[in-house]
Amino acid sequence: MGATGVGGTLLTLPRVKMTVAYDGTDFGGWQVQPGLRSVQGEVERCLKLLNKGSEIRVHASGRTDKGAHARGQVFHFDPTRAYSPDKWLESMNGVLADDVRILDVSEVAPRFHARISATGKEYRYFVSHGRILPPDLRHTHLFVLNSLDVPAMQAAAALFVGKKDFLSFSSDRGIDESTTRMIFRSDWLVDGHELVFRVAGNGFLYKMVRQMVGSLLRVGRGDLHPEDIERLLARPQRSADAPTAPAHGLTLWHVTYSDCAE
Amino acid sequence: MGATGVGGTLLTLPRVKMTVAYDGTDFGGWQVQPGLRSVQGEVERCLKLLNKGSEIRVHASGRTDKGAHARGQVFHFDPTRAYSPDKWLESMNGVLADDVRILDVSEVAPRFHARISATGKEYRYFVSHGRILPPDLRHTHLFVLNSLDVPAMQAAAALFVGKKDFLSFSSDRGIDESTTRMIFRSDWLVDGHELVFRVAGNGFLYKMVRQMVGSLLRVGRGDLHPEDIERLLARPQRSADAPTAPAHGLTLWHVTYSDCAE
Repeated sequence: MGATGVGGTLLTLPRVKMTVAYDGTDFGGWQVQPGLRSVQGEVERCLKLLNKGSEIRVHASGRTDKGAHARGQVFHFDPTRAYSPDKWLESMNGVLADDVRILDVSEVAPRFHARISATGKEYRYFVSHGRILPPDLRHTHLFVLNSLDVPAMQAAAALFVGKKDFLSFSSDRGIDESTTRMIFRSDWLVDGHELVFRVAGNGFLYKMVRQMVGSLLRVGRGDLHPEDIERLLARPQRSADAPTAPAHGLTLWHVTYSDCAE
Repeated sequence: MGATGVGGTLLTLPRVKMTVAYDGTDFGGWQVQPGLRSVQGEVERCLKLLNKGSEIRVHASGRTDKGAHARGQVFHFDPTRAYSPDKWLESMNGVLADDVRILDVSEVAPRFHARISATGKEYRYFVSHGRILPPDLRHTHLFVLNSLDVPAMQAAAALFVGKKDFLSFSSDRGIDESTTRMIFRSDWLVDGHELVFRVAGNGFLYKMVRQMVGSLLRVGRGDLHPEDIERLLARPQRSADAPTAPAHGLTLWHVTYSDCAE
């Protein structure tokens, strides 16, 4: 919650929620890191400009990896300036670099937290599957030259749906947390040379989507079978060599909140 | 026509035609210019690599401006190496930077010339018309914040169709040439926030498409009326302040050749 003094009286300003899209190509990821250009750093730089020089810390729904993109990342912060949502949207887009755009702004309850209040997330992973990668897709699509067995990839993708232990599809960050997640949707959308993996769930482990995609592409190449995916889910294990698809094909598509959280 | 000596005998190699796509963002245009990265320079660098170090000069259907893109630019050259079209395609894409891709290769008659044999060209100009420019469109779409009168833009675009003098829609390059061109198609494709100007003709003057778009956007904003476009076509004049739309929205979409030229 932000507070601003007017004539000695403290006025409480509502917490602000922003939805942001970014092209992650020229960023070292979402999170601020020394010496790297980060989306969080770019957003906080602009908020400081607009908040009379006050440092503003933003809290996102989660990190995104170096090179990964977002269409619907969400963060919140407590402003020190009384702007309307429209004024925030226009002011931020007026100062942000053009590879980051604020798409939506709203005022939320003080208990809203972009990470803790999130009830679900959707990611999309873009694959260009053909002989030649069109130049305009090179930063957003993984290029796969080999022919892929798409029906086998569909069958394997469907196995991820449900409440399952995804230990086999994650990287250890040394965090002692449950590796069980609920996946609502997991399928491939096929449009000509484009294959789009759509996955939605109540949460995702570190590198989970990229390891799901890496495994599904192995199925597509015939190096794994859908039954192998089934076994990795039934007998969870930290894979020695879980194939991790490159970050640049990944886009954080949407973050869901229950109405009462906002 | 290329020639290669084998045991003292000169073998004539067929002329090669290539169709190329590029993201023009990081290029100073198609044409080789000192100190600038050019698409032609990148293509010729790779052909030299593959032609045993021989300098190879390519001839395109025409130039494209700094920042403009191509989906179907065409060039020809005379090789010194006997590669099949498939081998050329794979070899070139193996050495080209990833913002340039060869999409198609064929062998053509010695009289084929990418510029002189062309019977028509199609360009597309991409406009994103809304409140926010999505970050992934920033290098390919012109952003127009204002609301546009699309029906007036459609009516004005239709006036370009036919055999007309486009002097009012060109920039002087000091070349003494006819300014009459035949336009086969000129319309706007509307898809949500995206407006795409599609224009096909037997040829285009310098900056002609960008000045057509600049004028149509003035119509869309209400600063010009379709009748003004009609007058500029009926009484051709080198406009003092012809509005030229930015190059980055422009894509050379397709070049047409009559069958007998190939």
